[in-house]
Amino acid sequence: MKPYTFGVDIGGTTVKIGFFTSDGQLLKKWEIPTSTENNGASVLPDIAASLSSFLEDKSIEPDEIEGIGIAVPGPVNMKGIVNRCVNLGWGVVNLREEMNRLLPEIPNVRAGNDANAAALGEFWQGGGKGHESAILITLGTGVGGGVVEDGHIIAGKNGGAGEIGHMTVEPSETQICTCGKYGCLEQYASANGIVRLAHRMLKESDKPSALRSMASFTSREICDLARDHEPMAESILDRCSYYLGLALSYAACTADPDVIILGGGMSAAGEILTSRIQKYYSHYVFHASAHTPIVLARLGNDAGIYGSARMVL
Amino acid sequence: MKPYTFGVDIGGTTVKIGFFTSDGQLLKKWEIPTSTENNGASVLPDIAASLSSFLEDKSIEPDEIEGIGIAVPGPVNMKGIVNRCVNLGWGVVNLREEMNRLLPEIPNVRAGNDANAAALGEFWQGGGKGHESAILITLGTGVGGGVVEDGHIIAGKNGGAGEIGHMTVEPSETQICTCGKYGCLEQYASANGIVRLAHRMLKESDKPSALRSMASFTSREICDLARDHEPMAESILDRCSYYLGLALSYAACTADPDVIILGGGMSAAGEILTSRIQKYYSHYVFHASAHTPIVLARLGNDAGIYGSARMVL
Repeated sequence: MKPYTFGVDIGGTTVKIGFFTSDGQLLKKWEIPTSTENNGASVLPDIAASLSSFLEDKSIEPDEIEGIGIAVPGPVNMKGIVNRCVNLGWGVVNLREEMNRLLPEIPNVRAGNDANAAALGEFWQGGGKGHESAILITLGTGVGGGVVEDGHIIAGKNGGAGEIGHMTVEPSETQICTCGKYGCLEQYASANGIVRLAHRMLKESDKPSALRSMASFTSREICDLARDHEPMAESILDRCSYYLGLALSYAACTADPDVIILGGGMSAAGEILTSRIQKYYSHYVFHASAHTPIVLARLGNDAGIYGSARMVL
Repeated sequence: MKPYTFGVDIGGTTVKIGFFTSDGQLLKKWEIPTSTENNGASVLPDIAASLSSFLEDKSIEPDEIEGIGIAVPGPVNMKGIVNRCVNLGWGVVNLREEMNRLLPEIPNVRAGNDANAAALGEFWQGGGKGHESAILITLGTGVGGGVVEDGHIIAGKNGGAGEIGHMTVEPSETQICTCGKYGCLEQYASANGIVRLAHRMLKESDKPSALRSMASFTSREICDLARDHEPMAESILDRCSYYLGLALSYAACTADPDVIILGGGMSAAGEILTSRIQKYYSHYVFHASAHTPIVLARLGNDAGIYGSARMVL
């Protein structure tokens, strides 16, 4: 194993780049803008140029680099071929071939989906460090997920593994999810989902709440009020946690991981959220898996670069 | 690879033994009684004697045998150590060590749990043949399951992977499951579960049904009436299929397999069951996985010996 590796996480506005030791220590990270002009034609050349100038600045030889892992916001097949990234303007891109042409000195290039890379990163050096399997769930604008088994991401036949956010946890729901179904976990547990749930619960109850006097409110404000023990906000967080615990119990009845890792913006709520999820999870899961720990993600926005580096190793 | 292998499936009353080519063809199968006297002390010696006499009869040398796979009705850890088989009277048994002492000429011995072995067998040479991943669900006295990923069974941290029968598909259920929870899939979709569901639905409706005039009835009789298009029996089968489709959608949102295989006694209902399950599954699963085929198991009671043989290879 060569001493260093690069982890690259391509987003719609910036590309995050990490320079790692091959045992997983992040030595340096930086960002470059994502140029989406001309169907994203310069995204990979910009990355190659940035890596090259970094190596030159630091007087590191390319043959000290084990490889380059790249996470992209779209589906990637086993051969590293990207099939449409709407945010970047890409159609079908053979990422390995392109990078090999741009940076022939570092031939080992791996590509993967960004959500899966973030899951792998958290598993490797974050909340899952030291474990062999994990389920990750990310509570952000949407609800994402990833399943790691024996150190590897399970992508699934159709890239649908880890789609915990689209488990139908409320079959009687009448409002539609962005995915076209009804009653997905995401409709109750994403940042938008909990706000939607709050509005509904406020309408159905006459409990007093500071939320009633606010023209609009965020998931964070709900969590802050729950932390201050406002009963209505606690009820809302509890209902959201019920759906999360139920969905995670389904995931554990399928894969029974060592650990469950909670990430994304809403996980900043911390223990008031994890303790509630753990209660419902343990209640609904098969007894053998009742004590699986639910822990917080640790790497934040760096999870993607960690996971990209891990793909190479 | 040596040309032959043995697959052994230890049950509470009989031990099934299969003699296979190492590419998965079953050449010969037979059974011996399971002697549970004296805490099952003679189960392994009986198996060793049966294998030895078979080889002698057929003039096959032990060094033509790749190995012996053994499925047991209880939990087995990674090292092949069995931890309590209530049906056999076993405490902790190091299966590989014991068999190596009894049959030193065939040192390669693997052990696994019987439900997982059956899943692996169906995956290898049954309904999953030619695929790389599968989820198996077995509708019998209980509802069992298995998850195969990249050709290997996922056992899970606590042996709880594939416990699809204990997903809580009806959180509002008030009757208790044998596992101690409420609303498990098994309470609606096992042979006993569908009968229980039928009694409840008959009580809650006044639709006419041949079932009303029967002192007691079986899952098979419900399926037969549904096949004859009796509306009440069709409603019962439909409700059971709803729960199965929902639970399988959860499993697919976690692992997204190539194929879903339906086995066990109740799967004899065939297409009237699979078509209904497929309808609900496709409705509730994430769209990427909506077209995953749901197929019938093919190996019946031989799945365990196939899977045991596969463990060796």
